[in-house]
Amino acid sequence: MSRWEPNARGRLEQAAMELYGERGYEKTTVTEIAGRAGLTERTFFRHYADKREVLFGGSVLLQGLLVDTLAEAPESASPIDAVAGALQAAAAVFDERREQSRRRQEIISANVELQERELVKLDSLAAALAGALRERGVPEPAASLAGEAGVAVFKVAFGRWIGGSGELGMGEFIQEALDELKAVTAGGRA
Amino acid sequence: MSRWEPNARGRLEQAAMELYGERGYEKTTVTEIAGRAGLTERTFFRHYADKREVLFGGSVLLQGLLVDTLAEAPESASPIDAVAGALQAAAAVFDERREQSRRRQEIISANVELQERELVKLDSLAAALAGALRERGVPEPAASLAGEAGVAVFKVAFGRWIGGSGELGMGEFIQEALDELKAVTAGGRA
Repeated sequence: MSRWEPNARGRLEQAAMELYGERGYEKTTVTEIAGRAGLTERTFFRHYADKREVLFGGSVLLQGLLVDTLAEAPESASPIDAVAGALQAAAAVFDERREQSRRRQEIISANVELQERELVKLDSLAAALAGALRERGVPEPAASLAGEAGVAVFKVAFGRWIGGSGELGMGEFIQEALDELKAVTAGGRA
Repeated sequence: MSRWEPNARGRLEQAAMELYGERGYEKTTVTEIAGRAGLTERTFFRHYADKREVLFGGSVLLQGLLVDTLAEAPESASPIDAVAGALQAAAAVFDERREQSRRRQEIISANVELQERELVKLDSLAAALAGALRERGVPEPAASLAGEAGVAVFKVAFGRWIGGSGELGMGEFIQEALDELKAVTAGGRA
């Protein structure tokens, strides 16, 4: 018999982030996360496969948002403009969650297994962007390179946004990284 | 008492690759690898931390070769040209080992843990290229973007080279990927 639990997923995520911050990711158990959220372990496992996945729910949402936005870009948009537009569409989501993103990044940076998982998600994102571009008729290897370029821009922009003072938004760092990538690949010495 | 073992490292690598191909990476033990190579386990652990690292010895050599070549590029070379020159300098090493590279890739593709490790090595390569560019006076974020761009070119070129018929060399796929990345970031619809 399962009861309806209002916002169970969000409560589990918040409890997990608190505990990972307080005692470290390795030392936190699913039992503790469920307890802190006032939910059962069984409810936890209805929402997440394991304690690692709590940290990557956002990556799945981000990939979906980027792929959907890319698919709706005007037909006339070049591959890189379609990718850049998708990244810009996601920028506001980051700005709304800067503090959570910063805490999440601290947890990931402290654990090699989580860093590996983050790289897998980014690799999957590059492949998903390339797939969405092929759907738009972009041939290979242009589609894969535009997908990888999009992830390169995202990685660098995210690092500067999360390490910055908070004055500039994620959108400005995405634009900066995109402009720099264009300048770099054009062969212009910065 | 350790005896001198001629080319122990190469013999261990060959034995490991044979066994990974025959019975799978997961089912192969260090004892079996050492036995097949006619060496002791102790000798194995003098050369490799574990059975996974046997597959990534080449990644370490590749990173060293790329960073050294990049450091010696003419001062006038733009960041992307310096990175491209380093990748081209490594192309011959790949062409000499196409069959080994293909077998290695099959083993890695069959195992999630190895795929994660491969992504960690590529991330480390991007960071090393960016570091070598900063040494040349390239500022951030241009250095990081050129490093990521170099790895994007390498990933796409490697995939096409290993999946191809063997007629074209790695150097041609690197040039193709670099040209495509330049075209894509210039905004030209392919």
